[in-house]
Amino acid sequence: MEFKNMVQVGLVVSDIERARALWAKLLEVEEPPIVETEDWDFTHMKFRGEASKGRAKLTFFKLENMVLEIIEPIGGPSTWQNFLEKHGEGIHHIAFVVENADESMRKLLENGASEEQKGRFKGGGYFYLDSRKSLGAIIELLYYEK
Amino acid sequence: MEFKNMVQVGLVVSDIERARALWAKLLEVEEPPIVETEDWDFTHMKFRGEASKGRAKLTFFKLENMVLEIIEPIGGPSTWQNFLEKHGEGIHHIAFVVENADESMRKLLENGASEEQKGRFKGGGYFYLDSRKSLGAIIELLYYEK
Repeated sequence: MEFKNMVQVGLVVSDIERARALWAKLLEVEEPPIVETEDWDFTHMKFRGEASKGRAKLTFFKLENMVLEIIEPIGGPSTWQNFLEKHGEGIHHIAFVVENADESMRKLLENGASEEQKGRFKGGGYFYLDSRKSLGAIIELLYYEK
Repeated sequence: MEFKNMVQVGLVVSDIERARALWAKLLEVEEPPIVETEDWDFTHMKFRGEASKGRAKLTFFKLENMVLEIIEPIGGPSTWQNFLEKHGEGIHHIAFVVENADESMRKLLENGASEEQKGRFKGGGYFYLDSRKSLGAIIELLYYEK
């Protein structure tokens, strides 16, 4: 049951270095590395149905029971950039790992979600579904290559 | 270390019955009960420094690794009502259980948070700190009576 375990919460910020430093201090851990999303040739990212070269810097803190992802959009249309412009810094999504992305996506779409963004990363890919008006959140479905 | 374990994610919605029905279907569980926050005489709620009779309906889904809280504001000034008016439905907060609320609050305030709301519930109490411009999220500190 893919939605029983929330693997990640994603925060959008305007300054990832600052947010990373503050979280590292709060958690009393070393600062994790900052990575950038891959080029479009690799990600094939689509934002609201259109191919987009929007990118972001990312960093990940492993908590005991899940991962806290921190995201700074760095130009180009994306769900992250759109969220930052519209709402300012805040909690962007909750994420679940799925075995069958099409099937899990179908469950969200039939509940009233819309496809917000999708793309690939090394080892897998993701879909963001905008389920704010149905489930109260943007939900990320993460899948990994086998 | 109080911030190592994220115990809860809280979503603000405009119709808790609808959101509860959709989450119950998605998680393949029974619908949990809906409760209302207590009267002000019990909660002593303050929103941004002012006593407020703002209230909400709440329901809780236990996931494997944390609790998903769904919140519908039902009148009166509150962080929930303010979020719904300003941003629409979405992810309102992430929560951590603390042993020493004053000490944990100090850590957030010194990082640039502001006190957003506080109140009591049966068996404990909570503080919401607006850390969106520092840590990227509204953070709830939950404490329980011993």
